[in-house]
Amino acid sequence: MANDQDPPRRRFLKAGVAAGAALGAGSVAHAATKAQFKQPVDPMTVVEPFFGEHQAGIVTPQQSHTYVAALDLTTDKRDDVINLLKQWTDAAARMSRGETAKPLPTDDKSAPDSGDILGVGAAGLTVTFGFGPGMFEHEGKDRYGIAKHRPAALVDLPRFNGDQLLPQKTGGDILIQACANDAQVAFHAVRQLARMGYGMVAMRWGQAGFLSGPRGQTPRNLMGFKDGTNNPSTAQPALMNQFVWADAPDAPWMNGGTYTVVRRIRITIEHWDQMERGFQEQVMGREKYSGAPIGKKNEFDALDLDAADKDGNPVIPDNSHVRLSNQATNKGAQILRRSYSYNDGTDFYIERWPPWRQETEYDAGLIFIAHQSDPRTGFIPINDRLAKFDMMNQFTTHVGSGVFACPPGARPGSYIGAGLFEA
Amino acid sequence: MANDQDPPRRRFLKAGVAAGAALGAGSVAHAATKAQFKQPVDPMTVVEPFFGEHQAGIVTPQQSHTYVAALDLTTDKRDDVINLLKQWTDAAARMSRGETAKPLPTDDKSAPDSGDILGVGAAGLTVTFGFGPGMFEHEGKDRYGIAKHRPAALVDLPRFNGDQLLPQKTGGDILIQACANDAQVAFHAVRQLARMGYGMVAMRWGQAGFLSGPRGQTPRNLMGFKDGTNNPSTAQPALMNQFVWADAPDAPWMNGGTYTVVRRIRITIEHWDQMERGFQEQVMGREKYSGAPIGKKNEFDALDLDAADKDGNPVIPDNSHVRLSNQATNKGAQILRRSYSYNDGTDFYIERWPPWRQETEYDAGLIFIAHQSDPRTGFIPINDRLAKFDMMNQFTTHVGSGVFACPPGARPGSYIGAGLFEA
Repeated sequence: MANDQDPPRRRFLKAGVAAGAALGAGSVAHAATKAQFKQPVDPMTVVEPFFGEHQAGIVTPQQSHTYVAALDLTTDKRDDVINLLKQWTDAAARMSRGETAKPLPTDDKSAPDSGDILGVGAAGLTVTFGFGPGMFEHEGKDRYGIAKHRPAALVDLPRFNGDQLLPQKTGGDILIQACANDAQVAFHAVRQLARMGYGMVAMRWGQAGFLSGPRGQTPRNLMGFKDGTNNPSTAQPALMNQFVWADAPDAPWMNGGTYTVVRRIRITIEHWDQMERGFQEQVMGREKYSGAPIGKKNEFDALDLDAADKDGNPVIPDNSHVRLSNQATNKGAQILRRSYSYNDGTDFYIERWPPWRQETEYDAGLIFIAHQSDPRTGFIPINDRLAKFDMMNQFTTHVGSGVFACPPGARPGSYIGAGLFEA
Repeated sequence: MANDQDPPRRRFLKAGVAAGAALGAGSVAHAATKAQFKQPVDPMTVVEPFFGEHQAGIVTPQQSHTYVAALDLTTDKRDDVINLLKQWTDAAARMSRGETAKPLPTDDKSAPDSGDILGVGAAGLTVTFGFGPGMFEHEGKDRYGIAKHRPAALVDLPRFNGDQLLPQKTGGDILIQACANDAQVAFHAVRQLARMGYGMVAMRWGQAGFLSGPRGQTPRNLMGFKDGTNNPSTAQPALMNQFVWADAPDAPWMNGGTYTVVRRIRITIEHWDQMERGFQEQVMGREKYSGAPIGKKNEFDALDLDAADKDGNPVIPDNSHVRLSNQATNKGAQILRRSYSYNDGTDFYIERWPPWRQETEYDAGLIFIAHQSDPRTGFIPINDRLAKFDMMNQFTTHVGSGVFACPPGARPGSYIGAGLFEA
């Protein structure tokens, strides 16, 4: 790997500073001044529009923090669900503008907002809602009279090789993902929405995640590699229409929506850290520091899966992560990954399948989030192959899982999911 | 409470933007330009000096993220500890400048740095080290020949009323606290240092924490109240000398250091959210939105503990948090709180003492961190009173605890703890 210089970290810093200016591009900012194109946008003042053709938080440039939660519906009343979705739509739109979930009362009674983000700013908040299989069918019952509208694409995920799913981190009838450039703003949004559903929904699982700056480049996850290089470009609507936005005729209410798979993937980063860099690169199929495919120079150089070394062995190993997850290996399938790292402190027990039981320290890894027009041609076949062959499985364990139909965005005056309940 | 307007969140936004400019004051920034006083400092490029009279991260203005960890020493060799402290000093200084923990090798062997912060920037990183009681005595043994230097102020904390301490979140021989304006940069620092100690130390507990922006104001914690208003001012060296920096004659190696108490305080925020604001304010002794003492107008108005209402009852309740924790109630004692919120997802089991068993959803709360010249006159008497009488105990449970002697800062060429081992 003669191409592979080990750049001292300093050399990156200038690029980091410059990239800051691109942050929040495509977004509206509070307090915009004439100088806004000279100064980096303050990530705390960014405002992302809530209403639109698509929900926010799907093709929105990734913010630095997320809080993802799944809730179970405990009500049997269709009107409860509709009313809750209306309230949630209004509150999510308010919070996306930097306001409290509801107006604060002027007396000293219980307030509809915890108030912990007062004075903070919208911080680029997006709130994205999704519906799990339990919305359509629960213990064999069609609680809300919408079972007939369940899209075929909203499948129950199969068990994958090596899965060690924990019930308390898996499933859920409703997904709420909040993303923001501030950890507290993201959590705040889910906390207020969950509270509004008191008596109708119960929290099933919640997970905080983060992404390291600068946001103008492909971020590195906790394995130290850039994560997301091969994503289809959100700047190309044709690619988004092909791979991300749903348009199946069996569920027209989902047109402009997407299907979202969430996996909590615990990573034994302590063991990964002990590996030789050369081995890490074989596992990934990419060079660590540049992000380039093995044998190439630059991060965005095309992956040459046919390249062979002088002995005729593939340069990109057969069981490497990039080869197995690549479009060419998966009948042209692509998914839009929008993952975050997570770090829940220490936990010395690890859910691992027998070949790789290891001691561990950190409960850390990836809250993998992928959007696609149909999981049956997206995540499922891709992950089936990865779960069987990916060398990375020595270090990763899927401990949580969920699949959700995220409906299209709402118009002002309407609400998220209106198309489903008024279909 | 006629004074108490409920300000719409918008009104705060301008203040938030302006406050951004104060961020990183007193710090050196990379890529400084002539325009640096006009533009807000990019928090990702801030560099805090590692070497100095005091350790960084104690009176440093709070960064937005922390990762706090406690490690147990597993070696019996004094030289191992000294060598590790030397390596840690060098690595912490490097990372504080935005570099990798050690220089990266040019071959593809195992690298001494996970590389996940390449390209990110120093992000205001500070790394603070502390020594727990186990450094001086472990199972009755003086492993490193330093038991005679144990300061009287490094006491084992007593059990407090209501404590529900979990062994896996309590204690530790060595504290490492990393703080930065980026979650990944903070965790990265502890991860590299822990790995360097392989075979000599074992992770005991680790905890990520965050603070909401803007950083120019007193931040609100998850209870929605400003937290830290009554702190002694770090801008007044006389106050720091009186309350924070150690100078006891029995342990001169600690002069310029401090004693740090860490408590993981779980908060039943779901229950707190249901309380009337008027009740929350009685619990706290302050008005929620302004932060002013009850009956006053502004956050920094002096607390009048003698004020009575027309019936002769105290305006600031006897069992309110501000009264019980106030200097006047504690023989003049003050501690420097530098706490972070934490949010480890959902956990439906809660450690609570019998009077207040409650259902819960979030494993969230405060990673309380307080620095002081002597815990025997600081945290211990203050918390003893709070643990018995504070109305807030209905919502809070201390589930983790640690006390550490944080030595003074190191000179370049020396190392953290040199004064102890060369005493």
